[in-house]
Amino acid sequence: MSDNSINKKQTITIALDCMGGDKGVHAVIPGAARAAKQMPNVSFLLFGRKNDIQSVLVKYPKLENRCEIVHCDDVVAGDDKPSAALRSGRKSSMRLAINAVSEGRADCIVSSGNTGALMAMAKLVLKCLPGIHRPAIASLIPTVRGSTLVLDLGANLTCNEDNYIQFMILGAVYAKAVLGISSPTAGLLNIGTEDTKGHEMLQMAKAILAQVEMPGEFKGFVEGDDIGKGTVDVIVTDGFTGNVALKTAEGIGHLFRETLQDAFGKSLFGRLAYLLAYKPFSKVKKRLDHRVYNGGLFLGLNGVCIKSHGSADDYAFSHAVIAGAKMVENGFNTVVANEIKALENQKQKHDFDELKHADISEMASA
Amino acid sequence: MSDNSINKKQTITIALDCMGGDKGVHAVIPGAARAAKQMPNVSFLLFGRKNDIQSVLVKYPKLENRCEIVHCDDVVAGDDKPSAALRSGRKSSMRLAINAVSEGRADCIVSSGNTGALMAMAKLVLKCLPGIHRPAIASLIPTVRGSTLVLDLGANLTCNEDNYIQFMILGAVYAKAVLGISSPTAGLLNIGTEDTKGHEMLQMAKAILAQVEMPGEFKGFVEGDDIGKGTVDVIVTDGFTGNVALKTAEGIGHLFRETLQDAFGKSLFGRLAYLLAYKPFSKVKKRLDHRVYNGGLFLGLNGVCIKSHGSADDYAFSHAVIAGAKMVENGFNTVVANEIKALENQKQKHDFDELKHADISEMASA
Repeated sequence: MSDNSINKKQTITIALDCMGGDKGVHAVIPGAARAAKQMPNVSFLLFGRKNDIQSVLVKYPKLENRCEIVHCDDVVAGDDKPSAALRSGRKSSMRLAINAVSEGRADCIVSSGNTGALMAMAKLVLKCLPGIHRPAIASLIPTVRGSTLVLDLGANLTCNEDNYIQFMILGAVYAKAVLGISSPTAGLLNIGTEDTKGHEMLQMAKAILAQVEMPGEFKGFVEGDDIGKGTVDVIVTDGFTGNVALKTAEGIGHLFRETLQDAFGKSLFGRLAYLLAYKPFSKVKKRLDHRVYNGGLFLGLNGVCIKSHGSADDYAFSHAVIAGAKMVENGFNTVVANEIKALENQKQKHDFDELKHADISEMASA
Repeated sequence: MSDNSINKKQTITIALDCMGGDKGVHAVIPGAARAAKQMPNVSFLLFGRKNDIQSVLVKYPKLENRCEIVHCDDVVAGDDKPSAALRSGRKSSMRLAINAVSEGRADCIVSSGNTGALMAMAKLVLKCLPGIHRPAIASLIPTVRGSTLVLDLGANLTCNEDNYIQFMILGAVYAKAVLGISSPTAGLLNIGTEDTKGHEMLQMAKAILAQVEMPGEFKGFVEGDDIGKGTVDVIVTDGFTGNVALKTAEGIGHLFRETLQDAFGKSLFGRLAYLLAYKPFSKVKKRLDHRVYNGGLFLGLNGVCIKSHGSADDYAFSHAVIAGAKMVENGFNTVVANEIKALENQKQKHDFDELKHADISEMASA
């Protein structure tokens, strides 16, 4: 493991795409104001239509002092194909906000816009960190124990063993450097915990991860129910599986809320019981408020990029902004770069290729 | 679509592996008694250690009259590898119960034992239905609208387009013939609903399913949250994704229950509020009682085989028995065979191979 002592960044500039999401400036500006209250060291570059931005910004004079508006007319539409957005969105608020990061005028970009377009542009402009082959989308999911970081949630249809290992480093560094968990636990998502379960790529990744020193503690394979149970701090999977798992979790959350509403909302007695149980119910609501978990973290890029949910309100948007600011403040990418170097050094000692094949052939004959 | 009018089977014999699961005979026999009350046309063959079985069976004299015990000493252990169970479990209660189905002495087998061993033995002994390349594990999952049948939940790590299409037929026939849904809706699980999303195999399956006549109505791609929302009656996926989704749903269910317990159970006020809200809470509990959904249906085999959850109590086990009995009663496998024939006839009209490649190349250039 490398030396992770990083000096905290003192002042942070965040580029905001003000035109994305269902609510546009009406979520972005009030959201930025909320975040600014909590983080006095943050200032903003606001990208989008000047008049739209100003009409809301005037209501937040304290924020106004910490903002600079960069006018642009173009907007990436929610249903633009990534390839189309790359071609025709060169002067869009999304693209110019990303450019600000690559040109060093901002430390971080936050957008509620089109996910595919944002990822495509961020990859093209910011590129991957050295030693990272592909970026991943990560998000915190509430669990019995607190929350678990799950990645990838949709950037990669399939993964090879190197992707899994790199995602493991990205996730563990986030848990350690940004969330402050001193020795985060991590697992690879599979359909069973035995060595022989799942795809060969997963088995190879597990064989390597069991042998190398990494930030945090690798716990081997975990299963779908470990997400909600919070068995580990970080769960790594491919983007297809992660996307289905995340959305399944959302759907089951919806089912529970609907079932409770149905039981408590449809009769006079139920509504009365709800009023009497209001306090514990508020506790549950607060504990499982998805807005607190807003912020798809694009990890592995040479720059910090956060995707806020398209339907985010100002409270949710503020959490995405704070997530980005904390990644910058704690030097996330610098720590990742150090850990990747440390991994490369270990690779020179071990012969990973031999390791992979030895373990797999043993498994196959088990 | 083929003619689905099937005469209901009048008498049904179910082979029960009495030695499987955490509770063995103590869940199987009382569970069979519960099921027998609801289905007067069912009788049982009980496989396992005679003394163990009889010690519980004497408590259920009405059931006793409808049972025949087949003594066997051997038991497949919960942690036996499928390959080991195949080799050394030839005289186990699980294997002999499956043999009873293949030899026509029983119509259906239900076991709470080792899933991998049960699937391996069932595949070897019963074999697949003509035209079905691989069996799938299916289960009902509670949704806002009622329940959705999801398959595959773990029998196949990956699937090709033919597997997806065959699973679609299996699922739709189950919804129609067994659940009595006159025109079931069905979707393919993906990470988005657009044609270009996901793996090529999924895109090919979608292209074909959009063109052929099937039992029920194909709705295209669905996403993870559609499981809990109950958007469609049947959801088809590969066994890796399905297994992760099912377990993720279980984990999130666990999270909701724990969070509610924490809010209502930790203070005097909370406990009081719970008592006052007891009635609506019982409604919620009943609605989401996982025991009602017990029964992993092994679909596509030339014989009906049901896997009850290892931790099932008698109430849960009775639901697995009833699920099997209903498949037999409604001639599930006969209807599937008819639908597969109907599909083959359509294949002769369409050129599926050309269709696949035409659609895919269009997508790639989209």
